Amino acid sequence: MELPEKIMLSQGGGGTASAALIEAEIVSRFARSGVLAGLPDAASLPEGVIFSTDSFVVTPRFFPGGNVGKLAVCGTVNDILVSGGIPKYLSLAMVLEEGFSRKELGEILDSVKEMADAEGVQIATGDTKVVPAGAVDGIFLNTAGIGFCRHGIRLGREYLSAGDKIIVSGGIGDHGMAVLSARHGINGVESDCGSLRKFADEAFRIGGQGIKLMRDPTRGGTGAVLTELLKGTPFGAGLEESAIPVSEKTRTLCRMTGIDPLFAACEGRMIAIVSAEVADEIVESWKQLPGGELAAVIGTLNTNAEEIVLCGEWGGKRKLILPAGDPLPRIC
Amino acid sequence: MELPEKIMLSQGGGGTASAALIEAEIVSRFARSGVLAGLPDAASLPEGVIFSTDSFVVTPRFFPGGNVGKLAVCGTVNDILVSGGIPKYLSLAMVLEEGFSRKELGEILDSVKEMADAEGVQIATGDTKVVPAGAVDGIFLNTAGIGFCRHGIRLGREYLSAGDKIIVSGGIGDHGMAVLSARHGINGVESDCGSLRKFADEAFRIGGQGIKLMRDPTRGGTGAVLTELLKGTPFGAGLEESAIPVSEKTRTLCRMTGIDPLFAACEGRMIAIVSAEVADEIVESWKQLPGGELAAVIGTLNTNAEEIVLCGEWGGKRKLILPAGDPLPRIC
Repeated sequence: MELPEKIMLSQGGGGTASAALIEAEIVSRFARSGVLAGLPDAASLPEGVIFSTDSFVVTPRFFPGGNVGKLAVCGTVNDILVSGGIPKYLSLAMVLEEGFSRKELGEILDSVKEMADAEGVQIATGDTKVVPAGAVDGIFLNTAGIGFCRHGIRLGREYLSAGDKIIVSGGIGDHGMAVLSARHGINGVESDCGSLRKFADEAFRIGGQGIKLMRDPTRGGTGAVLTELLKGTPFGAGLEESAIPVSEKTRTLCRMTGIDPLFAACEGRMIAIVSAEVADEIVESWKQLPGGELAAVIGTLNTNAEEIVLCGEWGGKRKLILPAGDPLPRIC
Repeated sequence: MELPEKIMLSQGGGGTASAALIEAEIVSRFARSGVLAGLPDAASLPEGVIFSTDSFVVTPRFFPGGNVGKLAVCGTVNDILVSGGIPKYLSLAMVLEEGFSRKELGEILDSVKEMADAEGVQIATGDTKVVPAGAVDGIFLNTAGIGFCRHGIRLGREYLSAGDKIIVSGGIGDHGMAVLSARHGINGVESDCGSLRKFADEAFRIGGQGIKLMRDPTRGGTGAVLTELLKGTPFGAGLEESAIPVSEKTRTLCRMTGIDPLFAACEGRMIAIVSAEVADEIVESWKQLPGGELAAVIGTLNTNAEEIVLCGEWGGKRKLILPAGDPLPRIC
């Protein structure tokens, strides 16, 4: 893809435009080899440390089910969890706009604290910058996280095989639709923004080395994550459209807006590719967890390299095509 | 200090206004105990990991001697070095403004790569966000860094004693004055932006456990760092004004602008408090390093708790009073 001279909004959306920018600017410089190769959600360092970072620029800063502070903890904690780590320390860097409300800052930091305490992670280091009015939109956060590897597990594309099942820990697209409804004052969907700790614990307890890959489908949603996971592998996937869990409210809002829930972001859901033998048991245990009620097996790996096909209720099939950008910028 | 309802620019400046905001919003929530207590430049985790983060919002993005990319590597690398660690991995998170020049992005990332390669640190994980035009001023970077403890060294206020020497690794205030001259088109000072790796190596090789504390005097400069280092200790310091190294160009620009070089930022200098026996030898070895030509012993610890006194060339004395904000916002 030929890149334009100027950065485009779509290049932050998690679709093909993002991928092209990252390939041209980041992979070419930093990820041809070493721990960044393959662009995992978090780096697995040879020292047994799992390391991840994300910036948080969501608008609005408060949305049903969370705010930018809660998101900043969950986002990085979840990246470590889906990479097979147990998160332990976070950094917290804030860029504040001159004139930003200190009351709002306090509420955001209260959420950071509440979520960090609940997850047993310590805010270990931080930074606070203030820039003149107009140089940033209110508050941008960054967290980086350090976790330590779980024992006896291994994740990687090299463990995939045809017949593996794709499972999801709950209804998809809630976060994207919650942000959308908050922007437009619709009394709508609540974000799934939350920690995946219990979902990861259950999956590894039941599945052990039967867990092949995990990701949390944030920007670009489930569709983008599955595309990335299978990229460069000899495997494709068939997804059962009727099995893909979407809550009633999110489905309605998606229909109203024409947004495909497969490309709407989650901030508290997990996609995993697992051995067929353990898939059902993991899904059953996920259904017992709060937020996991809609957990489901949604598809199966096959040998059609990199091709993801959606199988409709009445037998129709369509190829999953990743969009260029995100329908909703600034959702995290 | 009573805090205002709105965030003020001075609260990002490294002076007393910053300290009050951090005390009210961060220390109260996150740093009453645990690894963030005492607000070190980097966290020393019980696992032997040194962890640090900084955001970089400097304006202009390119200045004599560096740019925001070089700064983003040096800033975090240096925080780890002065905390007794050897930096090994960095995260790199970018927030880009829609419409930002991809050529400029490329130059900034080239500097990141060049500096990371020179330092032997790997970019291990990252994140790229794009926000609509107007939501951020061009590009803000964040790096977090992981290092591992040097063996056989220990740093901490508990090792200080009266008679310890305060040493500095080169002329102070160059970075602040370089940014100032770049903003106003003055053909002025070159930033000291650079790595402290060789300075730390030499100091620990010669001084070992005679090194008590180290800091890099960035926002707030040498004055703010010394104030922080002695806060809560039974020690004060006398500084020999004539011994404080300031390059000719920086001194001239400081005189023109009325800025005290003691409060102007460095981005490649180190302040250390060390045993009197090792001070001269470390300074002599620093003088052999590029950038270390002006290294000097600048003062001595005494028992006047928290009081820093400047002793002038003609015998006059004045107390060092930390300003509320920084004379130059957005210098890093």
